[in-house]
Amino acid sequence: VDEGDIDHARELVSPLHPADIADLLELTPAEQRGEVAAALGDLVGAEVLSELNDYVRDDLIGALAPEQVAEFASELDTDDAVAIIEDMEEADQQAVLEAMEPEDRAAIESALSYPEESAGRMMQRDLVAVPEHMTVGQVIDYLRDNGDLTRDFWEIFVVDEGHKPIGTCQLSWVLTCPRGIAMADLMKREQTLIPVDMDQEEVALRFQKYALISAAVVDGSGRLVGMITVDDIVHIISEEAGEDILRLSGAGEGDINEPVMDSYRARVRWLLTNLLTALVASTIIGIFEHTIEKMVALATLMPIVAGVGGNAGSQTMAVTVRALATNQITGSNARRTILREIRVALLNGCTVALVLGLGVGLVFHNVALGGVIAAAMMTNIVTAGLAGAAVPLAFDRMNLDPAVASSIFVTMITDSMGFFAFLGLATAAGLTG
Amino acid sequence: VDEGDIDHARELVSPLHPADIADLLELTPAEQRGEVAAALGDLVGAEVLSELNDYVRDDLIGALAPEQVAEFASELDTDDAVAIIEDMEEADQQAVLEAMEPEDRAAIESALSYPEESAGRMMQRDLVAVPEHMTVGQVIDYLRDNGDLTRDFWEIFVVDEGHKPIGTCQLSWVLTCPRGIAMADLMKREQTLIPVDMDQEEVALRFQKYALISAAVVDGSGRLVGMITVDDIVHIISEEAGEDILRLSGAGEGDINEPVMDSYRARVRWLLTNLLTALVASTIIGIFEHTIEKMVALATLMPIVAGVGGNAGSQTMAVTVRALATNQITGSNARRTILREIRVALLNGCTVALVLGLGVGLVFHNVALGGVIAAAMMTNIVTAGLAGAAVPLAFDRMNLDPAVASSIFVTMITDSMGFFAFLGLATAAGLTG
Repeated sequence: VDEGDIDHARELVSPLHPADIADLLELTPAEQRGEVAAALGDLVGAEVLSELNDYVRDDLIGALAPEQVAEFASELDTDDAVAIIEDMEEADQQAVLEAMEPEDRAAIESALSYPEESAGRMMQRDLVAVPEHMTVGQVIDYLRDNGDLTRDFWEIFVVDEGHKPIGTCQLSWVLTCPRGIAMADLMKREQTLIPVDMDQEEVALRFQKYALISAAVVDGSGRLVGMITVDDIVHIISEEAGEDILRLSGAGEGDINEPVMDSYRARVRWLLTNLLTALVASTIIGIFEHTIEKMVALATLMPIVAGVGGNAGSQTMAVTVRALATNQITGSNARRTILREIRVALLNGCTVALVLGLGVGLVFHNVALGGVIAAAMMTNIVTAGLAGAAVPLAFDRMNLDPAVASSIFVTMITDSMGFFAFLGLATAAGLTG
Repeated sequence: VDEGDIDHARELVSPLHPADIADLLELTPAEQRGEVAAALGDLVGAEVLSELNDYVRDDLIGALAPEQVAEFASELDTDDAVAIIEDMEEADQQAVLEAMEPEDRAAIESALSYPEESAGRMMQRDLVAVPEHMTVGQVIDYLRDNGDLTRDFWEIFVVDEGHKPIGTCQLSWVLTCPRGIAMADLMKREQTLIPVDMDQEEVALRFQKYALISAAVVDGSGRLVGMITVDDIVHIISEEAGEDILRLSGAGEGDINEPVMDSYRARVRWLLTNLLTALVASTIIGIFEHTIEKMVALATLMPIVAGVGGNAGSQTMAVTVRALATNQITGSNARRTILREIRVALLNGCTVALVLGLGVGLVFHNVALGGVIAAAMMTNIVTAGLAGAAVPLAFDRMNLDPAVASSIFVTMITDSMGFFAFLGLATAAGLTG
């Protein structure tokens, strides 16, 4: 599309939605991205930038002058502008902020003063708040007369004299009611208020749980300072749910647009840790060298016990991590969850141990070997069930992210237990081939 | 809370949001759930039921008469009622449907006629659609005069004479404009239409990509038949993203409220498959029995090469599965993604192989052994990178879910290659301890 014929390319791209143009840029190989963006010129506007993947955006913004970035940022809602500026380096941030209008600048500086990934960074300041004595008719007139208000809002917040939110009113309620009704009689008083320093993951869970479209953000003294709308939340829900899968495998940010060196640094750390835990398992095998010397078949079979046990551990761990991430587990049902996993493990253990024990006994014409591997498999699957549930729960209780740390420990436990149970039982049974 | 003192319990529960009451019931041990629900009586209403986890709800609904279920269902929006009824057994479904008012019944039967997990099942039929010649004032009067319309809508759909959607109008736009403006001049013509048979995952991705609040659902001939709102989508986004983590580990539905026997059936199938693939790896070790006999240390070290390789494979696989799930990979960048993963694998391989080779060489005072294990580690990490990216991409191209099938294959490849490379190189190098 972009070989020379710029006019034609522009023609093809111009009817697209900003999100589609952003996708197009992401699919372009990194080396040609600057060129393509330059060719598209003004078609790559502020909205396209805010839809871009973080890595791709950093790439493109790096090539822009601070004044251009400032211009883009002022076209966007506060939350989108903050998302672009917060990833920049300190010096570049300053340059961009200085190039902005004082009003926009103040809004962004105040957002940046809240912790990263907090409600304060995500909220937008433009909202509609009215006092409770206003009637539906007065609200509609007020909205018609104040053209400079935001055009994108879904609910009206009702506030008291101290600017504290006391109720929320869906626009559909305003539209379906006669002009004379007072907002106080129309609004819903039960509302979900978001403290300005709440973590975005918690905010996302609230939106999900109470099926919110927008929510009022309040500061420490309960005053209305901003609002968060659900369209900004869907990204977070999807990211947070997706992050766990990457964390469990130690893949870091795990974005396909991440620079190779960043991926390398994130992953190699994990692999080196894994090397250490593999050494533990290896040391356990070392203890039983003499048994293996007597019967080399043990070396052939031992990875089965460790491998299947590891898999059983991953299953339980995935279920537990997911349940923790969605707030399904609290103190009162943690013990119940572990017991449940052990019951599933006992059933799985019986089945797999039976199949494996019978198979090995028949193939090697050795009943004792079959019995030993069956007992070891059973032990390891139950250990895996226990570890897979207990380790993430323990990390969660210590306020550590269960997705990050659990899998290293669970794998170490299932590997070590797999080798230890199998080789230990074989030694005890005096197997000599 | 619920030991005898029912009145007190009711008092505590009554101010809670239905979603919170649902949470409370989920946290109650399964045996006591019926009792608690009975004690709470009418506090466990239709909305609480629709917020409940599938398994917990089936439990409670099983104890209700069809007439009661029918009454609950008629209080809910079509989409929520369908969600409750679609999980019931055929005979119970019929009984509930027969107990419903003809109008509600027709709506639900028509929803059930669409495939499971399709837009037709999720949509609600109550929506506001107006012809394009209406003015803002006429729309407001129409809404005020028709009290029986739904009260929960966020956008008004503008349709032509054939009831085909031609534009969408946010309620905030209607409220901020003078009465005289025609809807045709106010509405946004670019809109995202959802075909009634579109899969819910695809619907969720559209909502996410275009930051939609609601969207029109159209039938095969393009007529407006329903609407989907974002609050129903957030659950799906979170479920779909969470499902992959469970599928990758073979944990099935992976819900902590799933009956133990269901979890057992889902997981044991996976473990038995895993047993088969472990046999492949075991067979490869068997080929090299004589080499191991000569040098038992090889048996001690071989799980390290397989294990770290397996981990490197999981990392790449997690990144690829996630990128596929979020539509980040298309034909044009698939090759690029594989090349990228191989580059990361080369860097990881060099680092880990160097550390492992040096360590083993020093500990065993055996340079050849160190060289062999380093070369095997390098080979296996690169193989893992290739397999971790290529296997999910291949499954995706075959229209199979990459999250379900990939990990079995990738593990088999990294295990087998780990043992083969290490023991094969050791044999070739003539290592004899």
